[in-house]
Amino acid sequence: MQDNREPAVTISSIASAAGVSVPTVSRVLNGRSDVAPATRERVETLLREYGYRRRGSAQAAPAGLVDLVFNDLDSPWAVEIIRGVEEALNAEGLSVVVSAIHRRGSADSTRKWLDTLSARASDGAILVTTDLDSFLHAELQRLHLPVVVIDPAGVPDLDVPTIGATNWTGAVNATEYLIQQNHRRIGFVAGRPGIWCSRARLDGYRAGLEAAGIAVDPELVHGGDFDYASGFDAGRALLALHDRPTAIFAASDQMALGVYEAARQQGLRIPDDLSVIGFDDLPEAGWASPPLTTIRQPLSGMGTLAARTLVRLIHGETVESPRVELSTRLVRRSSVQALGPQDRFPA
Amino acid sequence: MQDNREPAVTISSIASAAGVSVPTVSRVLNGRSDVAPATRERVETLLREYGYRRRGSAQAAPAGLVDLVFNDLDSPWAVEIIRGVEEALNAEGLSVVVSAIHRRGSADSTRKWLDTLSARASDGAILVTTDLDSFLHAELQRLHLPVVVIDPAGVPDLDVPTIGATNWTGAVNATEYLIQQNHRRIGFVAGRPGIWCSRARLDGYRAGLEAAGIAVDPELVHGGDFDYASGFDAGRALLALHDRPTAIFAASDQMALGVYEAARQQGLRIPDDLSVIGFDDLPEAGWASPPLTTIRQPLSGMGTLAARTLVRLIHGETVESPRVELSTRLVRRSSVQALGPQDRFPA
Repeated sequence: MQDNREPAVTISSIASAAGVSVPTVSRVLNGRSDVAPATRERVETLLREYGYRRRGSAQAAPAGLVDLVFNDLDSPWAVEIIRGVEEALNAEGLSVVVSAIHRRGSADSTRKWLDTLSARASDGAILVTTDLDSFLHAELQRLHLPVVVIDPAGVPDLDVPTIGATNWTGAVNATEYLIQQNHRRIGFVAGRPGIWCSRARLDGYRAGLEAAGIAVDPELVHGGDFDYASGFDAGRALLALHDRPTAIFAASDQMALGVYEAARQQGLRIPDDLSVIGFDDLPEAGWASPPLTTIRQPLSGMGTLAARTLVRLIHGETVESPRVELSTRLVRRSSVQALGPQDRFPA
Repeated sequence: MQDNREPAVTISSIASAAGVSVPTVSRVLNGRSDVAPATRERVETLLREYGYRRRGSAQAAPAGLVDLVFNDLDSPWAVEIIRGVEEALNAEGLSVVVSAIHRRGSADSTRKWLDTLSARASDGAILVTTDLDSFLHAELQRLHLPVVVIDPAGVPDLDVPTIGATNWTGAVNATEYLIQQNHRRIGFVAGRPGIWCSRARLDGYRAGLEAAGIAVDPELVHGGDFDYASGFDAGRALLALHDRPTAIFAASDQMALGVYEAARQQGLRIPDDLSVIGFDDLPEAGWASPPLTTIRQPLSGMGTLAARTLVRLIHGETVESPRVELSTRLVRRSSVQALGPQDRFPA
């Protein structure tokens, strides 16, 4: 985009040439009085001589920034989305500011993020798995900042484009696949309660069973929180049932890995003694032993689409389809085994 | 930092109030001629009325940006570092621009990143596992941009602060621990050749063995590339040896997970039939089955320290210790088992 332009002179280079610190140059630029007159004059002369361009000033095209905001940067999940967003925005000459607002920690954190966002004059924001409540939504509207939400945590009833994955359909496909492999007693480990995608995956599991004429056994549905520990606990509980499942579908890869460990501790081999299927297709799924069969959410693709949608909003274009769900797909690896006739329960 | 300030008026809000697109407002701000005179006047009036602050202009404190640069955003590794950098810079009121320069892909990509960096007037940059070659170093010096390198890929002979981990000591500790558990035939899977930390870990393995009076058997040392597939290949080769190792130390967690899968495919259980130890302590290590014993690199701590060091450089302070290695430590989980007397080789 800017391949033939001379690199801009920075505050650091002025500071270096003037033999002063960067904060001193900033003080001069900001018109503050706590700078010795001789120093001020030297810096101002250099600013003119070097042709210093102020950020976003009339001489230079503003170097666009987009905020990519996570609740917490605590999952390998995040890097997949960052990659997709970064690639798409980079191609448009925009840069990605990544931040974590730790919303569950404190309301101050959201307030602080909003202040920084406006001070920086960001061109737009992509929020990830955020419960876009009315406070946050009102503040963003007040800033007239284009916003796109990836994987909305709550029901997307506010007027903001959202990019998700086909959580319900993916869960149907996972369940259908296990049924095709002759499994009938299929355990389910649910995602964090209160999050939209958790409900969609649970509903998809139920729909898949019912479509095959299999009644949902509430004993086989166990709560979880998307993380490894909750998958381990759920796996242990499901495998302790008198009539234990022959397959477990966990609503996240991390929980599926917890199920692996619960099975190992009970002396059960995967897939010989228990089939397991996950959801997400994080890189970890392929590194599991045995490699995990899972439902792929196109996380980096969701990042890319969110970025492209945001760019259209920044350019003042309208988005015809404000709620998009990208397709999930089954990725077959080695954690599911077909039951033989001797293992089958009577149909 | 800026909690009591009114949020700045953005280009978007001006565009919205004027009923024009954001690019139109940008054109007015940039003094371009392709705007209808009436539109220009309306926009300029609003810019004055709303008190629009240009980025970095004298009315507003510049909202500082720091670049965090990866070769590729392809590892769960990255999110750990991003978290550490983001927390530390956020506390200083600075924002983190994350980018991938795909240096192995093309030289153009580095050039393009440098151009964007200077156009954005970034206050500094943190480079991760970068081979800071003389071209890149010269360009960054030309921009007078403070730079810190995390986990330098090459010998850090250039005049730039680096933050690493005690790779050599960590590898000694891993090897000593296996020896304490009575292992004598200890395989080693090396990291990507040509990278400094790979050499340090190999040397630490050798030093640990030699300190215990165990000769290094070249047959037990296998090349790797840090990734899962190379760990799998190395594990398969080591386990196919006539006199196979009782323990394998892999120079990354991902390779250790590849060794897990190689063992599983040969019908070997971990830790009963084979002990495995990794290096990194990515979240994945705790999610393995069995959970992986490993050497913890404080990745988010390295990010935090790099950020704090950079802030000092930005403020014109000097850094007394330009090369810092943060301590690694052994994290014991369930993948190493002590050999009983019957399993031991004669000392």
